Amino acid sequence: MASRNSKKPLWVVEKERQRKGDGPEALWLFGLHAVRDALLNPSREKLRLVVTKNAHDKLEADIAQAGITPEVVDPRKFSVPIDAQSVHQGAAIEVMPLEWGSVSEICATKGDAPLVLLLDRVSDPHNVGAILRSAEVFGARAVIAPVRHSAPETGALAKTASGALERQPYLRVQNLSNAMRALKEMGYFLIGLDGTAEETLEETLVKLPPVATALVLGSEGPGLRHLTKETCHTLAKIRFAGAFGSLNVSNAAAVGLYAVAQRHRQSGD
Amino acid sequence: MASRNSKKPLWVVEKERQRKGDGPEALWLFGLHAVRDALLNPSREKLRLVVTKNAHDKLEADIAQAGITPEVVDPRKFSVPIDAQSVHQGAAIEVMPLEWGSVSEICATKGDAPLVLLLDRVSDPHNVGAILRSAEVFGARAVIAPVRHSAPETGALAKTASGALERQPYLRVQNLSNAMRALKEMGYFLIGLDGTAEETLEETLVKLPPVATALVLGSEGPGLRHLTKETCHTLAKIRFAGAFGSLNVSNAAAVGLYAVAQRHRQSGD
Repeated sequence: MASRNSKKPLWVVEKERQRKGDGPEALWLFGLHAVRDALLNPSREKLRLVVTKNAHDKLEADIAQAGITPEVVDPRKFSVPIDAQSVHQGAAIEVMPLEWGSVSEICATKGDAPLVLLLDRVSDPHNVGAILRSAEVFGARAVIAPVRHSAPETGALAKTASGALERQPYLRVQNLSNAMRALKEMGYFLIGLDGTAEETLEETLVKLPPVATALVLGSEGPGLRHLTKETCHTLAKIRFAGAFGSLNVSNAAAVGLYAVAQRHRQSGD
Repeated sequence: MASRNSKKPLWVVEKERQRKGDGPEALWLFGLHAVRDALLNPSREKLRLVVTKNAHDKLEADIAQAGITPEVVDPRKFSVPIDAQSVHQGAAIEVMPLEWGSVSEICATKGDAPLVLLLDRVSDPHNVGAILRSAEVFGARAVIAPVRHSAPETGALAKTASGALERQPYLRVQNLSNAMRALKEMGYFLIGLDGTAEETLEETLVKLPPVATALVLGSEGPGLRHLTKETCHTLAKIRFAGAFGSLNVSNAAAVGLYAVAQRHRQSGD
């Protein structure tokens, strides 16, 4: 696929995009790994690829496989709209966000007990990136987050996700409570992770048959919003050893995913 | 405690420190939370406190409790040697690293089954910060890392650790293998987390009586070094659902700590 806007100066392209303001916005992924992952993903719509000669040589086979015409630039003229501090390694690709499909399509149960993760306003791209990695490792069917107040697909998120962004469904929905109700109707049991819950996650899981399960996590400070809590079947806390401290949200997600995956596996034995 | 160097210009203080080059180096913690945590920690040696009027008002009680004389500065003249992008919120404190004591003191077993975490060259301060939080939550006795090639106490680490840096023993040792051997002699069972291991962590833990346990994690790319692997009693992997993906190191640490803490609790029931 040829580069769509390669003849217009970058700032014109950016301005036109801002003016439109409708539909999903393109984004820049950067760094050798993230660019390679995007190149090798046939579902990823690719708009422009900007590489230095050095990066081009490293990515040559992947570029050929993707069938995109790269813009090979002098390292001193490497100019794409990414954060100045970003470690781009001479490679950046403009892409469209992935379209994974709807919650009902992706999360449909087919006689199995899928695991889904919902994020209530987790806005830090590094946390969401790490969460996508964990979701993939523990076989979550999808990570679901509201369009507003949660980390969008960005280059920083892709970099932290370390390839998982291309493989792990990350669904952005208009309304998280609606998505939760849809999951309920599909037979999911919804567990909200909440530090003030009376039951521990283990106490909740030990009673749970191996059903489709959704874990819901809030942002670090405010936690789950009232309506989100209300929409869960139950709330559970991760057991703490001491009186102090709290888990980073991606670490809480990893522990929750592990605990549910472990429980499903034991029930299935 | 009064500020030690308040009359010398900052660059002179810095220069003198660099010239000395021996012993532990002072560091700057920043941000309201990290500064408050340090102020309230009686074990923390405090050298200088620089605050704006606004931050001073918020920290007034904590400053009084710490007994340090603050340097209240104009926000436009807030100048301390921290990364320009750091969100300092008008508060920074120069402190000495905490002295937790030796491995044999901190990790001594007293008829209980403590849990210890060892980090083999985990150098990202954000990962180590998150790991300290998890270590505190799951009641690890200590996090042990080599002096070289691992994240030192810094402002960025303290910020990610979200208070845990002041409470969770973080021991830097000259030689990790020596520390591992010392733990062995103290009765610890050493489990290296390694993606290429034959056994899963659950398979390892289910056979394990509730003994003192040390989990050893390597850095994300290279993993555990050869000698580190050799020094473990056994290697174990976290079970993956799919063929792709990997966990962020702090997420792997959280899952490992949770699994061991859970196992110890079950054995103790």
